[in-house]
Formats: sequence, structure tokens, C-alpha cells
Amino acid sequence: MKARVHVMLKDGVLDPQGEAIRHALGAMGFRGVEGVRQGKVIDLDLAEGVTEADVAEMCEKLLANTVIESYTIEMG
Amino acid sequence: MKARVHVMLKDGVLDPQGEAIRHALGAMGFRGVEGVRQGKVIDLDLAEGVTEADVAEMCEKLLANTVIESYTIEMG
Repeated sequence: MKARVHVMLKDGVLDPQGEAIRHALGAMGFRGVEGVRQGKVIDLDLAEGVTEADVAEMCEKLLANTVIESYTIEMG
Repeated sequence: MKARVHVMLKDGVLDPQGEAIRHALGAMGFRGVEGVRQGKVIDLDLAEGVTEADVAEMCEKLLANTVIESYTIEMG
């Protein structure tokens, strides 16, 4: 079983990596990029029996800093 | 218009961040995590007229190191 976790900075939290990408794309001549946010994606290979609630606990305790980051979980 | 880009290390490329997460989860008592791969997710806000081909060019030239990383693009 697999799970994919996305960890993104919350809206309103400054994202210097995303801003750096936006500036670099502009400097390289790419037009029309109005905003960039960068986050992490974590793909988990899970044994049978591991539930979405378990993955949420992993996010709360390790994978995300919930003060400034939000996470989403896709099981599949 | 929005695009989401995933950049992951190719299969066979050592992923020390993923391994560190896997070990940490085990040390914290989480069972059943058999593998972890960490990558980047980049959310782009795009002006009208920017195509998936443009985003692919951004990936090739800046967002991914295609020697060791693969990328996927979701337009939406």
C-alpha cells in the first residue's frame, strides 16, 4: 500500500524558495508565472494494516511542522 | 490557471532524506513503513496562455535536474 503526503507552507507564510524560483524563471525569460509555492512530497510504502490515521499521526509528529505547514494525505 | 509539478529522485538514486525519515519513523515506534522517498512539489500560478509544454521547459531548464530527477506535471 502506498501513501503520498504533501507538506506545504501555510498561506501567509513567506516562501523564499518559491520566490527564488519565480525570480529565476522570470530572469530566464519565462513569462506568465505569477506565483510559486514550493513544498515537499513524501511517498510512503506501507505494510498492510497501516491506516490513514497512522499516516496523519506521522505527519503531526514528524513530517510537518504544523505551526507553519499544512499537509494532505492521499492513500492509494 | 495552476500547475503542480512533482520532482522526485529517479529509481535507483539514493535518497538520504527519505532514508532519514524512514529511520526516524521507526525510532518513534511507527511500524509498517517499508520505504520512503522524498521529493519536491512546486505549485505554479500561471497566466492564461501558458501551456503544459512551457511548464515542461521550465522543468527541463530549472526545476528538475534530469540527470537524477524525474518530474510530472498536472495542469488544472
